Formats: sequence, structure tokens, C-alpha cells
Amino acid sequence: MKKNIVIVGLGLIGGSLAKAFTQYTDCRVAGIDTDPAALEAALACGAVTKVGDDNDLRSADIVYLCLYPQADIDFVKGHLSAFSPHTIVTDVCGIKTEVCRALTALSKKGGFPYCGAHPMAGTEKHGFSASRADLFQGASYILVPCSAPAQVQELLRQTAFTLGFGRSVTTTPEEHDQMIAFTSQLPHALACAYVMSPRCLGHRGFSAGSYRDVSRVANINEVMWAELFLDNRAALTAELDTLLENLSDIRSAVAENDRNKLEALLRQGRLIKEELGE
Amino acid sequence: MKKNIVIVGLGLIGGSLAKAFTQYTDCRVAGIDTDPAALEAALACGAVTKVGDDNDLRSADIVYLCLYPQADIDFVKGHLSAFSPHTIVTDVCGIKTEVCRALTALSKKGGFPYCGAHPMAGTEKHGFSASRADLFQGASYILVPCSAPAQVQELLRQTAFTLGFGRSVTTTPEEHDQMIAFTSQLPHALACAYVMSPRCLGHRGFSAGSYRDVSRVANINEVMWAELFLDNRAALTAELDTLLENLSDIRSAVAENDRNKLEALLRQGRLIKEELGE
Repeated sequence: MKKNIVIVGLGLIGGSLAKAFTQYTDCRVAGIDTDPAALEAALACGAVTKVGDDNDLRSADIVYLCLYPQADIDFVKGHLSAFSPHTIVTDVCGIKTEVCRALTALSKKGGFPYCGAHPMAGTEKHGFSASRADLFQGASYILVPCSAPAQVQELLRQTAFTLGFGRSVTTTPEEHDQMIAFTSQLPHALACAYVMSPRCLGHRGFSAGSYRDVSRVANINEVMWAELFLDNRAALTAELDTLLENLSDIRSAVAENDRNKLEALLRQGRLIKEELGE
Repeated sequence: MKKNIVIVGLGLIGGSLAKAFTQYTDCRVAGIDTDPAALEAALACGAVTKVGDDNDLRSADIVYLCLYPQADIDFVKGHLSAFSPHTIVTDVCGIKTEVCRALTALSKKGGFPYCGAHPMAGTEKHGFSASRADLFQGASYILVPCSAPAQVQELLRQTAFTLGFGRSVTTTPEEHDQMIAFTSQLPHALACAYVMSPRCLGHRGFSAGSYRDVSRVANINEVMWAELFLDNRAALTAELDTLLENLSDIRSAVAENDRNKLEALLRQGRLIKEELGE
């Protein structure tokens, strides 16, 4: 596999894509970023071979947009004439309805194929310095094709497997955003709310795995996540309401010393995990 | 270190203590359990050398009570004359106020030293089959001495380090229970409430680390945890109220599309984790 790749935005995901392309494929990788330090670091470690320009966008086989949602849209708007009809444009945004609508419209205007995607990988760290070639090992690559032709989807999927992804699912922007509100956004909201307890700063010596796991992603990039939350606010609000209701039920059972009710609620949790085989 | 140890209750914690004593020390370990299968499994793998009886309790240097809270109390009540004045009795219960009060009273009546403790280790699995010699590696051993003499505390602490524990803190039953409501009970309540979302059963392909981490302990032993929750209901209710309030604040900021408020709330999460160096 020897293709021309352009990565726009060398943060955690963009940087990891660049490193994975460099380590696992023969592709040529050009990087674009407004931060000179990120470009320098990516060049220095060989994650990209050059700083990308309009010529690279024009000759690219795949362009990965790895900025925040609105910044991705703005970038494509600002470079609309630079994309050729042979360049596949994709993104890695954590929400899809707004991004896919805007980028699909721009791809029609610019005459190039666009296919939305969301690599289900990340850490609580961010920036190029946290990026790793093996970030995607075994992860799920979600494709949100909208109007992308089948061969475009297939190329992106095969490329993802080359980078280490372990599975791929295909869905609509709306279904994606509803699922992600639960699987990803809710745990981040939860982690932040959890560590706000006055007890948190004194946890050392009194904590173990369950503290560590639920609090991990409270180390959040609040600017990016606020944008992701608000772009998906109907679905996330609904998930937060569901969680608040279920948590209030547990709270009532505890406060009312109702053992049967409490056991029944906790049992639900266990049975769901058992049904999932987890 | 060649002491006589009796483990009462060969579940996850008792079984792991038995395996750790056998693997890392020269102690003789006798096991007591009402389940013949657990005893058989512990004998078969060499975690205990014999089934414990009243003579073993009488000649024990340390007895570890590893049943549920009320069952620990009932066991000591039922074997009060079996403990000698030289036998240290300790427990591993996840809550301490009720347990320490009852066992301290019984230890005075029976004339043997009692020192409460809580090994901060566990997994989402339970029973002897889930037990492991290395479960306590690096974990915190919480001592809740009540009226235990200093040399009793010191022996238990040194023994814990021999078993792999990495640190030890000493506290009161009340402080323990308030901290544990936050560090351990709340994440378990949260995990169960989280997986109750109708989205949960369809998460595959749409989830990654943050789903895995927050949902892990939903695979709960609901009978044991309901007892632990209810024995600590004032502290846990207070923590649940704090969490519900903080989560509702995030919910409002999302629903009202208030970016400044949302960023400020999420930033609090990040700053707390940064202050903790996590």
C-alpha cells in the first residue's frame, strides 16, 4: 500500500494516524497543522515526511481531517479548490450529524468524495506528544458513509485494518451520535461530575481500581469536549436524563434502606453485563 | 515469617489472602468455609493446607474474617470461646463503622485483640475461582485499629507488606466509611446506573476505553454490595446527592447550550485530576 496521505491536525488522533501510516504502511504522509511545534515534532520523529500544502492536498489519495468539528468544516471551506475529484476526504470527529451534513454539502460543491468516520480510540491525554502508532490496535473504526460510493468506503475500511483497527461498523450520522452519547460522552461527563466530590482530593490510600477507572477521563480537554457535547446536545441530554433517573432510583433505595429494591437495581447491572458477556 | 493463619471465608479476598500467604510466606494456612466446593478447590491448589476447626482458631496467630459484614459478626459470636488471648482477629470488610463496633465489643467479651482492616483490592469477579496470589500487589491496606494495641497494628501492617501491599493508611471507622462511599461504593452504584441505558446492549463497535472503564464494576455481586451500601447509607446517600447535583449542572449546561458554563464545569474535572497528578 503506497498512497499519498495528508493528515490535517496533528493532535492525539492525527498524530497517531501519521505514526501508524509511517510504521505499518509504505504510504507517504504529509502533515498540516497551525502549530509549528507539532509540525516540527512530527517531522523530527519521522511521523510525517513533509509539511503539507495545496499541492499535497491535490495529489492526495486520502485526506484525514483531524481538527475539532467546526475547524474541519472551516478547513475544507478554505481549501475547496485544492481537492481533486480523486481525493477521498474523511474525518475523525467524535460527533457526526453536523459534521457529515456540512462536509457532504462541501464535497458536492468541491466535486470530491467524502466519507465520515470515527476511530474509536483515544486516551485521557491529548496533543501530538500523546500520539502513538499503536493507538488503534484492535479498536473499532466506525464508518458513516452518507453518500460515499461503496469503493470509497471499502478503501477506508481496508486502510483502517492496515493501521491496526480490529473491527469496523457502518452506520448513519444520527445513530452514531446517539450511540456515542452513551458510550463516550456520558462517561466523560460522569468522570468530571465524579471527581467534583470534596472527598476526591483525599482519595490516596483509600482507593483502588474502581476509583481509577471511573475518574480516568476527567482529565479532559474541556474545549474540545464542550464542542462535541453541544453539537450532540439532544442525544447527550437524553442519556444524562436516563442516567440521573437510574442513579436517583439507587439513591432512593439506599436512603430508604430498601434492601429488596436495591438488590433488584444492582442485579439489573450484573444481568446486563452478563448478557453482554463482559 | 512462620505463623498460623486461619482464613474464614474463601471468596475473592479470603482466597487471595490464602494464596498470597502460601506463595509469599512460610505461614501455615487453614481455611474455613460453609461451601464444600470452595474448601475442596482451596485444598486442591494448595492455597490452604487444611480445613480449619476450633483447634486451629485457638492456636492461630491471626484470623482473617473474610465473610460479609453480618456473617463475620455472627461467626465470631458463634466461636467466641475458641479464640485465645494471643490470637489477633481482623477482618476485610468494605465498611467499618458497624463491623468495628460489633467486633470490638465481641473482642472485649472474648478477651482477644481485634483490629479492623480493609484491603483496597478487588475485581469485578467474585468467589474462590477469581482469587489470585497477586491481587494485593501495590494496593493500600487500610487499618482501622479502634482499640487495638500498637504491636497488633504493626504485625498486621508488616504482614500486609509481605503479601504484596504497597502502602498502608490508618484511620477511624467513620472516616473510612466516608472515604469509601466516594472511592468505591459510588463507582459501583454509577456503573450499574450507567449500563441501565437502553443503548448499552448495542454498544459493540461503538465503544472503547471510556465505556469499558465506567461499566466494568457493574458486574456486581448485588447481595454483598447491597449489604455494604445499606450499612453505610448516610455517607453513600450524601455522595450520591453530590454526584447527582454535579451531573445535573453538566446536564443543564448541555441542554441550555451554554458553552462557557459547560467548559467551566469540565475544566473543574481536569484541574482536580491535575492537582492530584493523575
